[in-house]
Amino acid sequence: MFNQNSHYAIGVFDSGLGGLTVVKELMQELPFEDIVYYGDTARVPYGTKSKESIIRFSRENTRALLKHKVKMVVVACNSSSSYALTTLKRNFSLPIVGVIHAGAKKAVQTTRNRRVGVIATSATINSEEYTKTIHWYNPSVKVFSQACPLFVPLVEEGWIKKEVTLKVAQEYLSFLKKDKIDTLILGCTHYPLLKQILQEVMGKGVTLIDSAQEIALEVKQILGETQTMNSLKRKPRHQFLVTDRPQAFEKIAKNFLGYPVKLKVELNHV
Amino acid sequence: MFNQNSHYAIGVFDSGLGGLTVVKELMQELPFEDIVYYGDTARVPYGTKSKESIIRFSRENTRALLKHKVKMVVVACNSSSSYALTTLKRNFSLPIVGVIHAGAKKAVQTTRNRRVGVIATSATINSEEYTKTIHWYNPSVKVFSQACPLFVPLVEEGWIKKEVTLKVAQEYLSFLKKDKIDTLILGCTHYPLLKQILQEVMGKGVTLIDSAQEIALEVKQILGETQTMNSLKRKPRHQFLVTDRPQAFEKIAKNFLGYPVKLKVELNHV
Repeated sequence: MFNQNSHYAIGVFDSGLGGLTVVKELMQELPFEDIVYYGDTARVPYGTKSKESIIRFSRENTRALLKHKVKMVVVACNSSSSYALTTLKRNFSLPIVGVIHAGAKKAVQTTRNRRVGVIATSATINSEEYTKTIHWYNPSVKVFSQACPLFVPLVEEGWIKKEVTLKVAQEYLSFLKKDKIDTLILGCTHYPLLKQILQEVMGKGVTLIDSAQEIALEVKQILGETQTMNSLKRKPRHQFLVTDRPQAFEKIAKNFLGYPVKLKVELNHV
Repeated sequence: MFNQNSHYAIGVFDSGLGGLTVVKELMQELPFEDIVYYGDTARVPYGTKSKESIIRFSRENTRALLKHKVKMVVVACNSSSSYALTTLKRNFSLPIVGVIHAGAKKAVQTTRNRRVGVIATSATINSEEYTKTIHWYNPSVKVFSQACPLFVPLVEEGWIKKEVTLKVAQEYLSFLKKDKIDTLILGCTHYPLLKQILQEVMGKGVTLIDSAQEIALEVKQILGETQTMNSLKRKPRHQFLVTDRPQAFEKIAKNFLGYPVKLKVELNHV
Protein backbone atom coordinates (compact mmCIF):
# COMPACT_ATOMS: atom_id res chain seq x y z
CA MET A 1 0.00 0.00 0.00
CA PHE A 2 2.78 2.43 0.91
CA ASN A 3 4.77 3.68 -2.03
CA GLN A 4 8.07 5.24 -0.98
CA ASN A 5 7.85 8.04 -3.48
CA SER A 6 10.11 11.04 -2.99
CA HIS A 7 7.45 13.29 -4.54
CA TYR A 8 5.02 12.35 -1.81
CA ALA A 9 4.35 14.75 1.05
CA ILE A 10 5.51 14.70 4.66
CA GLY A 11 2.49 13.91 6.84
CA VAL A 12 2.21 15.59 10.22
CA PHE A 13 -0.51 14.99 12.77
CA ASP A 14 -1.36 16.54 16.10
CA SER A 15 -4.30 16.55 18.50
CA GLY A 16 -5.00 20.14 17.45
CA LEU A 17 -2.99 23.04 16.14
CA GLY A 18 0.08 22.91 18.40
CA GLY A 19 1.84 20.77 15.81
CA LEU A 20 1.99 23.77 13.50
CA THR A 21 5.17 24.77 15.39
CA VAL A 22 6.63 21.57 13.91
CA VAL A 23 5.32 22.46 10.43
CA LYS A 24 6.96 25.87 10.68
CA GLU A 25 10.34 24.30 11.42
CA LEU A 26 9.88 21.70 8.65
CA MET A 27 9.17 24.49 6.16
CA GLN A 28 12.40 26.20 7.14
CA GLU A 29 14.55 23.08 7.04
CA LEU A 30 12.91 21.52 3.98
CA PRO A 31 11.63 24.35 1.77
CA PHE A 32 10.80 22.10 -1.21
CA GLU A 33 8.81 19.42 0.61
CA ASP A 34 5.04 19.13 0.36
CA ILE A 35 3.37 18.90 3.77
CA VAL A 36 -0.03 17.57 4.80
CA TYR A 37 -1.02 18.62 8.30
CA TYR A 38 -3.82 16.84 10.12
CA GLY A 39 -5.17 18.34 13.36
CA ASP A 40 -7.79 16.37 15.32
CA THR A 41 -9.56 19.48 16.61
CA ALA A 42 -12.79 17.52 17.19
CA ARG A 43 -11.16 15.59 20.04
CA VAL A 44 -8.47 18.02 21.20
CA PRO A 45 -6.87 17.95 23.77
CA TYR A 46 -5.23 14.51 24.04
CA GLY A 47 -3.12 15.48 27.06
CA THR A 48 -5.91 14.66 29.51
CA LYS A 49 -7.07 11.45 27.77
CA SER A 50 -6.15 7.80 28.43
CA LYS A 51 -3.43 5.73 26.79
CA GLU A 52 -6.04 3.56 25.04
CA SER A 53 -7.92 6.53 23.59
CA ILE A 54 -4.71 8.23 22.49
CA ILE A 55 -3.58 5.09 20.65
CA ARG A 56 -6.97 4.73 18.95
CA PHE A 57 -7.06 8.40 17.89
CA SER A 58 -3.43 8.28 16.65
CA ARG A 59 -4.10 5.22 14.50
CA GLU A 60 -7.10 6.95 12.93
CA ASN A 61 -5.07 10.09 12.24
CA THR A 62 -2.30 8.07 10.57
CA ARG A 63 -4.87 6.32 8.35
CA ALA A 64 -6.31 9.71 7.39
CA LEU A 65 -2.84 10.97 6.40
CA LEU A 66 -2.17 7.87 4.30
CA LYS A 67 -5.10 8.80 2.06
CA HIS A 68 -3.11 11.89 1.06
CA LYS A 69 0.00 10.12 -0.29
CA VAL A 70 2.57 10.75 2.40
CA LYS A 71 6.08 9.26 2.47
CA MET A 72 6.51 9.54 6.21
CA VAL A 73 4.50 10.51 9.30
CA VAL A 74 5.63 12.99 11.93
CA VAL A 75 3.78 12.61 15.22
CA ALA A 76 3.87 16.23 16.34
CA CYS A 77 1.73 15.56 19.41
CA ASN A 78 3.76 14.76 22.52
CA SER A 79 0.91 12.76 24.09
CA SER A 80 0.62 10.60 20.95
CA SER A 81 4.40 10.22 20.71
CA SER A 82 4.46 9.09 24.34
CA TYR A 83 1.77 6.45 24.14
CA ALA A 84 1.16 5.53 20.50
CA LEU A 85 4.48 5.61 18.63
CA THR A 86 5.38 1.95 19.20
CA THR A 87 1.92 0.79 18.10
CA LEU A 88 1.97 3.02 15.03
CA LYS A 89 5.40 1.73 13.97
CA ARG A 90 4.08 -1.82 14.33
CA ASN A 91 0.84 -1.13 12.42
CA PHE A 92 2.15 0.93 9.50
CA SER A 93 5.02 0.30 7.12
CA LEU A 94 6.27 3.84 6.41
CA PRO A 95 8.79 5.78 8.53
CA ILE A 96 7.12 7.32 11.60
CA VAL A 97 8.90 9.68 13.97
CA GLY A 98 7.77 11.34 17.19
CA VAL A 99 8.79 14.50 19.02
CA ILE A 100 9.88 12.84 22.29
CA HIS A 101 13.03 11.21 20.94
CA ALA A 102 14.30 14.39 19.26
CA GLY A 103 13.78 16.56 22.35
CA ALA A 104 15.27 14.03 24.77
CA LYS A 105 18.40 13.60 22.64
CA LYS A 106 18.99 17.35 22.41
CA ALA A 107 18.51 17.77 26.18
CA VAL A 108 21.13 15.12 26.92
CA GLN A 109 23.55 16.86 24.55
CA THR A 110 22.82 20.25 26.15
CA THR A 111 22.89 19.68 29.92
CA ARG A 112 26.13 20.28 31.77
CA ASN A 113 25.00 19.53 35.34
CA ARG A 114 22.98 16.49 34.21
CA ARG A 115 19.76 17.85 35.70
CA VAL A 116 17.02 18.12 33.07
CA GLY A 117 13.46 19.36 33.56
CA VAL A 118 10.45 18.35 31.45
CA ILE A 119 7.18 20.26 31.28
CA ALA A 120 4.27 18.77 29.33
CA THR A 121 0.61 17.70 29.51
CA SER A 122 -0.54 15.19 32.13
CA ALA A 123 -0.61 12.33 29.60
CA THR A 124 2.98 12.93 28.47
CA ILE A 125 4.28 13.28 32.04
CA ASN A 126 2.38 10.21 33.26
CA SER A 127 3.77 8.11 30.40
CA GLU A 128 7.33 8.84 31.68
CA GLU A 129 8.52 8.57 28.07
CA TYR A 130 10.86 11.57 28.34
CA THR A 131 12.52 10.10 31.44
CA LYS A 132 12.89 6.67 29.80
CA THR A 133 14.28 8.12 26.57
CA ILE A 134 16.72 10.43 28.36
CA HIS A 135 17.94 7.49 30.45
CA TRP A 136 18.35 5.41 27.30
CA TYR A 137 20.81 8.05 26.09
CA ASN A 138 22.44 8.65 29.45
CA PRO A 139 21.28 6.92 32.66
CA SER A 140 23.19 9.35 34.87
CA VAL A 141 21.00 12.34 33.91
CA LYS A 142 18.45 13.26 36.61
CA VAL A 143 15.01 14.09 35.18
CA PHE A 144 12.48 16.34 36.96
CA SER A 145 8.94 16.44 35.51
CA GLN A 146 6.01 18.78 35.88
CA ALA A 147 2.59 18.58 34.21
CA CYS A 148 1.28 22.05 33.22
CA PRO A 149 -2.33 21.49 32.04
CA LEU A 150 -3.20 25.21 32.00
CA PHE A 151 -0.54 26.22 29.45
CA VAL A 152 -2.47 24.88 26.43
CA PRO A 153 -5.73 26.75 27.18
CA LEU A 154 -3.72 29.91 27.98
CA VAL A 155 -1.99 29.75 24.58
CA GLU A 156 -5.27 29.00 22.81
CA GLU A 157 -6.84 32.00 24.56
CA GLY A 158 -3.96 34.06 23.11
CA TRP A 159 -2.82 35.18 26.58
CA ILE A 160 0.82 34.79 25.68
CA LYS A 161 2.22 37.86 27.41
CA LYS A 162 -0.34 38.41 30.19
CA GLU A 163 0.60 38.75 33.83
CA VAL A 164 -1.79 35.90 34.68
CA THR A 165 0.21 33.57 32.45
CA LEU A 166 3.43 34.62 34.20
CA LYS A 167 1.78 33.81 37.56
CA VAL A 168 0.66 30.38 36.34
CA ALA A 169 4.19 29.71 35.06
CA GLN A 170 5.71 30.75 38.40
CA GLU A 171 3.34 28.36 40.18
CA TYR A 172 4.12 25.39 37.91
CA LEU A 173 7.87 25.96 37.68
CA SER A 174 8.66 26.68 41.34
CA PHE A 175 9.67 23.05 42.05
CA LEU A 176 11.81 22.79 38.92
CA LYS A 177 13.66 25.94 39.98
CA LYS A 178 14.45 24.37 43.34
CA ASP A 179 15.68 21.25 41.52
CA LYS A 180 18.45 23.36 39.93
CA ILE A 181 17.97 22.06 36.39
CA ASP A 182 20.07 23.69 33.65
CA THR A 183 17.99 22.40 30.71
CA LEU A 184 14.21 22.44 30.28
CA ILE A 185 12.38 20.42 27.62
CA LEU A 186 9.20 22.10 26.32
CA GLY A 187 7.37 18.78 26.00
CA CYS A 188 4.24 20.12 24.32
CA THR A 189 3.97 21.77 20.93
CA HIS A 190 2.05 24.72 22.40
CA TYR A 191 4.78 25.69 24.82
CA PRO A 192 7.24 27.33 22.40
CA LEU A 193 4.75 30.20 22.21
CA LEU A 194 5.39 30.80 25.93
CA LYS A 195 9.19 30.76 25.55
CA GLN A 196 9.63 34.36 26.67
CA ILE A 197 7.71 33.89 29.92
CA LEU A 198 9.28 30.49 30.60
CA GLN A 199 12.78 31.90 30.11
CA GLU A 200 11.92 34.82 32.41
CA VAL A 201 10.72 32.49 35.18
CA MET A 202 13.56 29.96 34.87
CA GLY A 203 16.33 32.53 34.44
CA LYS A 204 19.04 32.84 31.81
CA GLY A 205 21.07 29.91 33.15
CA VAL A 206 18.48 27.42 31.89
CA THR A 207 18.43 26.34 28.22
CA LEU A 208 14.97 25.72 26.77
CA ILE A 209 14.70 22.77 24.36
CA ASP A 210 12.11 23.18 21.62
CA SER A 211 11.29 19.73 20.23
CA ALA A 212 9.85 21.26 17.05
CA GLN A 213 13.29 22.36 15.90
CA GLU A 214 14.85 19.01 16.77
CA ILE A 215 12.25 16.89 15.00
CA ALA A 216 12.62 18.94 11.81
CA LEU A 217 16.34 18.11 11.77
CA GLU A 218 15.54 14.43 12.36
CA VAL A 219 13.06 14.39 9.47
CA LYS A 220 15.67 15.98 7.20
CA GLN A 221 18.20 13.34 8.20
CA ILE A 222 15.75 10.47 7.56
CA LEU A 223 14.77 11.80 4.14
CA GLY A 224 18.48 12.03 3.31
CA GLU A 225 19.26 8.51 4.55
CA THR A 226 16.29 6.94 2.78
CA GLN A 227 16.91 9.02 -0.38
CA THR A 228 13.35 10.26 -0.37
CA MET A 229 14.02 13.99 -0.35
CA ASN A 230 11.94 15.79 -2.96
CA SER A 231 14.28 16.51 -5.88
CA LEU A 232 11.94 19.07 -7.49
CA LYS A 233 13.04 22.54 -6.52
CA ARG A 234 9.63 24.13 -6.84
CA LYS A 235 7.18 25.92 -4.56
CA PRO A 236 5.78 23.19 -2.33
CA ARG A 237 2.14 22.41 -1.57
CA HIS A 238 1.04 22.77 2.05
CA GLN A 239 -2.33 21.37 3.06
CA PHE A 240 -3.97 21.92 6.44
CA LEU A 241 -6.76 19.57 7.49
CA VAL A 242 -8.69 19.61 10.76
CA THR A 243 -11.56 17.49 12.05
CA ASP A 244 -13.57 20.45 13.40
CA ARG A 245 -14.03 24.24 13.29
CA PRO A 246 -11.67 25.37 10.49
CA GLN A 247 -12.68 29.04 10.66
CA ALA A 248 -12.37 29.22 14.42
CA PHE A 249 -8.83 27.93 14.27
CA GLU A 250 -7.53 30.05 11.43
CA LYS A 251 -6.66 32.84 13.89
CA ILE A 252 -4.78 30.43 16.15
CA ALA A 253 -3.02 28.92 13.11
CA LYS A 254 -1.78 32.38 12.18
CA ASN A 255 -0.33 32.78 15.70
CA PHE A 256 1.56 29.53 15.28
CA LEU A 257 2.78 29.92 11.71
CA GLY A 258 3.13 33.67 11.56
CA TYR A 259 1.03 33.95 8.41
CA PRO A 260 -2.57 33.08 7.48
CA VAL A 261 -3.58 29.66 6.09
CA LYS A 262 -6.83 28.10 5.02
CA LEU A 263 -7.89 25.12 7.12
CA LYS A 264 -10.10 22.48 5.50
CA VAL A 265 -12.36 20.10 7.40
CA GLU A 266 -11.90 16.36 6.97
CA LEU A 267 -13.76 13.98 9.25
CA ASN A 268 -11.99 10.70 9.95
CA HIS A 269 -14.48 9.22 12.38
CA VAL A 270 -18.22 8.83 12.31
CA MET B 1 -38.89 1.71 22.07
CA PHE B 2 -39.28 4.16 24.95
CA ASN B 3 -41.25 2.81 27.87
CA GLN B 4 -42.43 5.53 30.23
CA ASN B 5 -41.73 3.53 33.33
CA SER B 6 -41.59 5.39 36.62
CA HIS B 7 -39.03 2.89 37.93
CA TYR B 8 -36.63 3.86 35.17
CA ALA B 9 -33.70 6.16 35.95
CA ILE B 10 -33.15 9.82 35.15
CA GLY B 11 -30.44 10.00 32.48
CA VAL B 12 -27.96 12.88 32.62
CA PHE B 13 -25.22 13.57 30.11
CA ASP B 14 -22.41 16.07 29.92
CA SER B 15 -19.23 16.55 27.89
CA GLY B 16 -17.25 15.63 30.98
CA LEU B 17 -17.73 15.82 34.72
CA GLY B 18 -19.16 19.32 35.12
CA GLY B 19 -22.67 17.86 34.91
CA LEU B 20 -22.13 16.25 38.30
CA THR B 21 -23.18 19.59 39.82
CA VAL B 22 -26.58 18.83 38.24
CA VAL B 23 -26.55 15.28 39.63
CA LYS B 24 -25.85 16.64 43.12
CA GLU B 25 -28.91 18.91 42.93
CA LEU B 26 -31.06 16.08 41.50
CA MET B 27 -30.07 13.86 44.41
CA GLN B 28 -31.17 16.50 46.88
CA GLU B 29 -34.46 17.30 45.16
CA LEU B 30 -35.30 13.70 44.20
CA PRO B 31 -33.74 11.42 46.81
CA PHE B 32 -35.51 8.25 45.60
CA GLU B 33 -34.73 8.52 41.89
CA ASP B 34 -32.18 6.30 40.17
CA ILE B 35 -29.69 8.30 38.10
CA VAL B 36 -27.45 7.27 35.21
CA TYR B 37 -24.74 9.82 34.49
CA TYR B 38 -22.85 9.73 31.20
CA GLY B 39 -19.73 11.91 30.80
CA ASP B 40 -18.04 12.02 27.39
CA THR B 41 -14.56 12.44 28.85
CA ALA B 42 -12.96 11.06 25.65
CA ARG B 43 -14.02 14.16 23.72
CA VAL B 44 -14.27 16.78 26.47
CA PRO B 45 -14.44 19.78 26.19
CA TYR B 46 -17.38 20.59 23.89
CA GLY B 47 -17.19 24.33 24.54
CA THR B 48 -14.54 24.85 21.86
CA LYS B 49 -16.09 22.50 19.26
CA SER B 50 -18.43 23.25 16.32
CA LYS B 51 -22.22 23.11 16.28
CA GLU B 52 -22.16 20.06 13.97
CA SER B 53 -19.78 18.10 16.19
CA ILE B 54 -21.71 19.01 19.36
CA ILE B 55 -24.98 17.78 17.79
CA ARG B 56 -23.35 14.52 16.67
CA PHE B 57 -21.77 13.90 20.08
CA SER B 58 -25.03 14.74 21.91
CA ARG B 59 -27.02 12.31 19.79
CA GLU B 60 -24.52 9.54 20.54
CA ASN B 61 -24.64 10.30 24.27
CA THR B 62 -28.45 10.17 24.29
CA ARG B 63 -28.38 6.80 22.51
CA ALA B 64 -25.89 5.51 25.09
CA LEU B 65 -28.19 6.61 27.94
CA LEU B 66 -31.21 4.90 26.32
CA LYS B 67 -29.42 1.56 26.65
CA HIS B 68 -29.66 2.02 30.42
CA LYS B 69 -33.46 2.35 30.69
CA VAL B 70 -33.96 6.02 31.38
CA LYS B 71 -37.33 7.78 31.55
CA MET B 72 -35.98 11.21 30.67
CA VAL B 73 -32.73 12.86 29.60
CA VAL B 74 -31.19 15.89 31.26
CA VAL B 75 -28.68 17.68 29.04
CA ALA B 76 -26.38 18.99 31.76
CA CYS B 77 -23.89 20.42 29.24
CA ASN B 78 -24.57 24.05 28.34
CA SER B 79 -22.86 23.71 24.94
CA SER B 80 -25.06 20.71 24.08
CA SER B 81 -28.17 22.46 25.42
CA SER B 82 -27.34 25.47 23.24
CA TYR B 83 -26.83 23.66 19.98
CA ALA B 84 -28.33 20.18 20.19
CA LEU B 85 -31.52 20.34 22.27
CA THR B 86 -33.90 20.99 19.36
CA THR B 87 -32.39 18.13 17.32
CA LEU B 88 -32.50 15.75 20.29
CA LYS B 89 -36.16 16.53 20.99
CA ARG B 90 -36.92 15.85 17.32
CA ASN B 91 -34.93 12.59 17.21
CA PHE B 92 -35.99 10.98 20.50
CA SER B 93 -39.41 10.40 21.96
CA LEU B 94 -38.76 10.77 25.70
CA PRO B 95 -38.75 14.05 27.68
CA ILE B 96 -35.45 15.90 27.21
CA VAL B 97 -34.53 19.05 29.12
CA GLY B 98 -31.50 21.34 28.96
CA VAL B 99 -29.85 23.68 31.43
CA ILE B 100 -30.22 26.88 29.37
CA HIS B 101 -33.97 27.24 29.76
CA ALA B 102 -33.91 26.78 33.54
CA GLY B 103 -31.12 29.29 34.10
CA ALA B 104 -32.59 31.91 31.75
CA LYS B 105 -36.02 31.71 33.41
CA LYS B 106 -34.56 32.14 36.90
CA ALA B 107 -32.46 35.12 35.76
CA VAL B 108 -35.51 36.89 34.35
CA GLN B 109 -37.35 36.31 37.65
CA THR B 110 -34.37 37.58 39.65
CA THR B 111 -33.17 40.74 37.92
CA ARG B 112 -34.52 44.08 39.15
CA ASN B 113 -32.64 46.45 36.81
CA ARG B 114 -33.20 44.15 33.78
CA ARG B 115 -29.47 43.86 33.10
CA VAL B 116 -28.36 40.21 33.09
CA GLY B 117 -24.84 38.85 32.49
CA VAL B 118 -24.02 35.41 31.11
CA ILE B 119 -20.64 33.71 31.43
CA ALA B 120 -20.05 30.40 29.61
CA THR B 121 -17.82 28.55 27.14
CA SER B 122 -17.22 29.96 23.65
CA ALA B 123 -19.71 27.53 22.07
CA THR B 124 -22.52 28.50 24.45
CA ILE B 125 -21.86 32.24 24.07
CA ASN B 126 -21.58 32.01 20.27
CA SER B 127 -24.89 30.14 20.06
CA GLU B 128 -26.62 33.14 21.72
CA GLU B 129 -29.12 30.68 23.22
CA TYR B 130 -29.17 32.40 26.62
CA THR B 131 -29.92 35.78 25.02
CA LYS B 132 -32.67 34.29 22.83
CA THR B 133 -34.25 32.41 25.74
CA ILE B 134 -34.12 35.39 28.10
CA HIS B 135 -35.74 37.56 25.41
CA TRP B 136 -38.42 34.92 24.87
CA TYR B 137 -39.35 35.41 28.56
CA ASN B 138 -38.87 39.15 28.58
CA PRO B 139 -37.65 41.11 25.54
CA SER B 140 -36.87 44.21 27.63
CA VAL B 141 -34.04 42.51 29.56
CA LYS B 142 -30.56 43.54 28.37
CA VAL B 143 -28.14 40.60 28.13
CA PHE B 144 -24.35 40.97 28.37
CA SER B 145 -22.26 37.90 27.49
CA GLN B 146 -18.67 36.87 28.12
CA ALA B 147 -16.92 33.65 27.10
CA CYS B 148 -14.51 32.41 29.82
CA PRO B 149 -12.61 29.47 28.26
CA LEU B 150 -10.00 29.29 31.05
CA PHE B 151 -12.47 28.62 33.87
CA VAL B 152 -13.00 24.94 32.98
CA PRO B 153 -9.29 24.02 32.95
CA LEU B 154 -8.78 26.02 36.18
CA VAL B 155 -11.54 24.04 37.92
CA GLU B 156 -10.22 20.75 36.54
CA GLU B 157 -6.75 21.65 37.83
CA GLY B 158 -8.39 22.11 41.25
CA TRP B 159 -7.23 25.75 41.48
CA ILE B 160 -10.52 26.87 42.97
CA LYS B 161 -9.21 29.31 45.53
CA LYS B 162 -5.88 30.38 43.99
CA GLU B 163 -4.92 33.98 43.41
CA VAL B 164 -4.31 33.20 39.73
CA THR B 165 -7.94 32.17 39.35
CA LEU B 166 -9.05 35.43 40.99
CA LYS B 167 -6.88 37.34 38.48
CA VAL B 168 -8.36 35.42 35.53
CA ALA B 169 -11.86 36.14 36.84
CA GLN B 170 -11.07 39.85 37.22
CA GLU B 171 -9.86 39.90 33.61
CA TYR B 172 -12.93 38.15 32.22
CA LEU B 173 -15.51 39.98 34.33
CA SER B 174 -14.24 43.54 34.01
CA PHE B 175 -16.61 44.38 31.14
CA LEU B 176 -19.63 42.82 32.87
CA LYS B 177 -18.90 44.95 35.93
CA LYS B 178 -18.95 48.09 33.80
CA ASP B 179 -22.26 46.94 32.29
CA LYS B 180 -23.84 47.23 35.77
CA ILE B 181 -25.62 43.87 35.67
CA ASP B 182 -27.44 42.78 38.84
CA THR B 183 -27.76 39.10 37.89
CA LEU B 184 -25.11 36.74 36.51
CA ILE B 185 -25.90 33.35 34.96
CA LEU B 186 -23.19 30.74 35.51
CA GLY B 187 -23.71 29.21 32.06
CA CYS B 188 -21.35 26.27 32.45
CA THR B 189 -21.66 23.40 34.91
CA HIS B 190 -18.08 23.88 36.09
CA TYR B 191 -18.61 27.45 37.21
CA PRO B 192 -20.56 26.84 40.45
CA LEU B 193 -17.25 25.62 41.90
CA LEU B 194 -15.90 29.15 41.41
CA LYS B 195 -18.91 30.81 43.09
CA GLN B 196 -16.88 32.30 45.92
CA ILE B 197 -14.36 34.00 43.61
CA LEU B 198 -17.04 35.12 41.15
CA GLN B 199 -19.10 36.66 43.96
CA GLU B 200 -15.99 38.40 45.29
CA VAL B 201 -15.19 39.91 41.88
CA MET B 202 -18.77 40.92 41.03
CA GLY B 203 -19.64 42.23 44.50
CA LYS B 204 -22.58 41.47 46.78
CA GLY B 205 -25.08 43.42 44.67
CA VAL B 206 -24.99 40.78 41.94
CA THR B 207 -27.02 37.56 42.26
CA LEU B 208 -25.36 34.44 40.79
CA ILE B 209 -27.71 32.02 39.02
CA ASP B 210 -26.67 28.38 39.24
CA SER B 211 -28.46 26.47 36.47
CA ALA B 212 -27.86 23.16 38.24
CA GLN B 213 -30.30 24.07 41.01
CA GLU B 214 -32.89 25.35 38.53
CA ILE B 215 -32.80 22.32 36.26
CA ALA B 216 -33.28 19.97 39.24
CA LEU B 217 -36.49 21.81 40.09
CA GLU B 218 -37.62 21.58 36.47
CA VAL B 219 -36.98 17.82 36.38
CA LYS B 220 -38.99 17.40 39.58
CA GLN B 221 -41.86 19.34 38.06
CA ILE B 222 -41.83 17.26 34.83
CA LEU B 223 -41.78 13.95 36.73
CA GLY B 224 -44.74 15.22 38.74
CA GLU B 225 -46.69 16.37 35.69
CA THR B 226 -46.03 13.18 33.73
CA GLN B 227 -46.66 11.02 36.81
CA THR B 228 -43.36 9.25 36.39
CA MET B 229 -41.87 9.95 39.81
CA ASN B 230 -40.43 6.79 41.36
CA SER B 231 -42.95 5.60 43.94
CA LEU B 232 -40.52 3.24 45.69
CA LYS B 233 -39.08 4.95 48.76
CA ARG B 234 -35.82 3.03 48.77
CA LYS B 235 -32.12 3.83 48.46
CA PRO B 236 -31.65 4.78 44.82
CA ARG B 237 -29.07 3.43 42.38
CA HIS B 238 -26.60 5.97 40.98
CA GLN B 239 -24.43 4.92 38.06
CA PHE B 240 -21.55 6.98 36.68
CA LEU B 241 -20.30 6.20 33.19
CA VAL B 242 -17.51 7.97 31.32
CA THR B 243 -15.98 7.38 27.89
CA ASP B 244 -12.38 7.71 29.11
CA ARG B 245 -10.06 7.68 32.16
CA PRO B 246 -12.35 6.66 35.03
CA GLN B 247 -9.60 6.57 37.68
CA ALA B 248 -8.17 9.92 36.65
CA PHE B 249 -11.54 11.57 37.06
CA GLU B 250 -12.57 10.06 40.37
CA LYS B 251 -10.74 12.82 42.24
CA ILE B 252 -12.49 15.52 40.21
CA ALA B 253 -15.83 13.74 40.70
CA LYS B 254 -15.31 13.90 44.45
CA ASN B 255 -14.74 17.67 44.18
CA PHE B 256 -18.03 18.03 42.35
CA LEU B 257 -20.20 15.68 44.42
CA GLY B 258 -18.52 16.09 47.78
CA TYR B 259 -18.08 12.32 48.26
CA PRO B 260 -16.24 9.56 46.35
CA VAL B 261 -17.87 7.57 43.53
CA LYS B 262 -16.71 4.82 41.20
CA LEU B 263 -16.66 5.79 37.53
CA LYS B 264 -17.09 3.01 34.95
CA VAL B 265 -15.88 3.24 31.34
CA GLU B 266 -18.38 2.78 28.54
CA LEU B 267 -17.35 3.53 24.96
CA ASN B 268 -20.14 4.77 22.72
CA HIS B 269 -18.14 5.40 19.58
CA VAL B 270 -15.60 3.34 17.67
